[in-house]
Amino acid sequence: MEVISLANYSIYIGEVWPSIKQLIKQGKYSSLLCLVDENTRRECLPIFQDALKDYNFNIIEIKSGEEQKHVDTCKSIWSGMKDYGADRQSLVINLGGGVVGDMGGFCAATYMRGIDFIHVPTTLLSQVDSSIGGKLGIDFEAYKNFVGLFKDPKAVFIHNGFLNTLSERELRSGFAEIMKHALIADPELWRIISKIDKIEVDKVDPLIIRALMIKKQIVEKDPFETGLRKILNFGHSIGHAIESNSMKDGDRLLHGESIAIGMVCESFISKELVKLSEPELNKIIDRFTHFFGKVDLSRFNTEAILDYLKFDKKNVGNTLNFSLIKSIGSASYNEYVNASLIKDSLHSYSNL
Amino acid sequence: MEVISLANYSIYIGEVWPSIKQLIKQGKYSSLLCLVDENTRRECLPIFQDALKDYNFNIIEIKSGEEQKHVDTCKSIWSGMKDYGADRQSLVINLGGGVVGDMGGFCAATYMRGIDFIHVPTTLLSQVDSSIGGKLGIDFEAYKNFVGLFKDPKAVFIHNGFLNTLSERELRSGFAEIMKHALIADPELWRIISKIDKIEVDKVDPLIIRALMIKKQIVEKDPFETGLRKILNFGHSIGHAIESNSMKDGDRLLHGESIAIGMVCESFISKELVKLSEPELNKIIDRFTHFFGKVDLSRFNTEAILDYLKFDKKNVGNTLNFSLIKSIGSASYNEYVNASLIKDSLHSYSNL
Repeated sequence: MEVISLANYSIYIGEVWPSIKQLIKQGKYSSLLCLVDENTRRECLPIFQDALKDYNFNIIEIKSGEEQKHVDTCKSIWSGMKDYGADRQSLVINLGGGVVGDMGGFCAATYMRGIDFIHVPTTLLSQVDSSIGGKLGIDFEAYKNFVGLFKDPKAVFIHNGFLNTLSERELRSGFAEIMKHALIADPELWRIISKIDKIEVDKVDPLIIRALMIKKQIVEKDPFETGLRKILNFGHSIGHAIESNSMKDGDRLLHGESIAIGMVCESFISKELVKLSEPELNKIIDRFTHFFGKVDLSRFNTEAILDYLKFDKKNVGNTLNFSLIKSIGSASYNEYVNASLIKDSLHSYSNL
Repeated sequence: MEVISLANYSIYIGEVWPSIKQLIKQGKYSSLLCLVDENTRRECLPIFQDALKDYNFNIIEIKSGEEQKHVDTCKSIWSGMKDYGADRQSLVINLGGGVVGDMGGFCAATYMRGIDFIHVPTTLLSQVDSSIGGKLGIDFEAYKNFVGLFKDPKAVFIHNGFLNTLSERELRSGFAEIMKHALIADPELWRIISKIDKIEVDKVDPLIIRALMIKKQIVEKDPFETGLRKILNFGHSIGHAIESNSMKDGDRLLHGESIAIGMVCESFISKELVKLSEPELNKIIDRFTHFFGKVDLSRFNTEAILDYLKFDKKNVGNTLNFSLIKSIGSASYNEYVNASLIKDSLHSYSNL
């Protein structure tokens, strides 16, 4: 097992069960609540309960999907916690992907003004993305993570075996975040990625720790996203706008699929504003189209995407504030981007 | 003007306007949002805006009353903030009593994962109680402050002039918290209170700082209520149960009125469990009945009160955990109280 130690907690990767047992023992918890969705209840909970036979878990189930990441789902989780008699000494275990982690973390962080929680991320996306950084967010109206908190879990446990429960599409979605980490901070990781032909569990597995180490270094320098940490949002300005708009007509793009489009568009913008070279731009386009194909953007209203961007959390006043890449492995932040550049980038993507 | 300096912020008392101006200037805020209810909009906002003429405030109004302290009201506040284009550099100003402070604080602390807020408490209760401690709570189902956070404001500004906008009943409600501070930690303050015949603004005003200093000392020793801070909940176990149950039939008791009953009942229990003397018990009963009269408890179902107590945040597992007083000015916490003692105390109150 490998351990990544952060300022306030650790991430355990590999054979995690003994460490979970130890945490439960040390925490002297009055009860254990386990949040799942219908997928992780079916695919992951049996593995989890089998490995932790001696414990009794109170199971709370929410429906899967980003559409559930709303305050009304919080109500049902708080209600479930109350019905199980959870108190300030209870532990919440989030067994699932990013939505389960965000919802369970937010609900635990606000239940009786805050109780302990741990993440047991079951998707590649949540393993590489939400394991570090303490961001808990719920969507509000059409806006992603508009309501939320910074609060660290007591620990994160990454059991790689859960990756085998994922569909190819979900695995690919998580891989987009690994690609992002390479683009903003790790040219060597990008070279490794460039040699991968097909996204498969055994190819992805060794890259998780590397991606986490990149995020760790960035977040530790700027835990509350006042500066440097914003580079982790590369691809997410346009990506979130596309993801949110794709939810409207029911044919939702996954987070990774959306930010893959976002990263291509924001690479076009990077070329214009921070001198990303044409050859590197082409390499980036090549990799993303290789893994993700090209999405038909004609279903999206450009004005709706621009409207969404007005409420991006990185903005200050009326300024649209992006994180961009100067070269593969080197990012910049607080870059002002005007509406016409955004439109051009969507146009360039569509013309690929 | 007087200033109480706490670990993370200061409380300004008296001629507060220059200090507010300075905070706004230093914070370089992109916009100022002011949360009010219909009462503080009418009574307090004109005073506030007159004193701060040079600024533009975006006003968000909620309905007054504890009944509004729910997550649906949060939705309308978040929505209002969004519609005004509030960003991470905006400031939320909570101009009102405890409900406005709790709701505005919680919504600011969770808007885009947390933006700055200040409290400008306009009731005696909120001035002495919620100015210190960083507790933000919203009610959930029937449970008071069941969802919430610990998060400090950037500052608190107590303009005593607002006390003149209060009804006699509201003033009395706040006075109950001052009495609590005396009972748990300050026998000299209790002697001062014993000489007061009628609760009036000029009698109460000089006691605010004294009450705040008591709370400051307790909270600084235990900011997250793992131990000592629990003594601030004296009277609140039974008090909250009564307050919550009084909301059901629409004839709501104010917070101070409820904890006044709670403090009498928990004084009866203190005599049984931690040797509060009979003469002191009688003094306590005398003062509370003098100021608050005696409330007819026959409208309350004793079982409903006990049910409520099962979800008290101080409980661990199935133990009902109270804070009690050993003598006037000296408290203890983590006292196990069984249901029959609680019933007896309600019975003793009714037989006064």
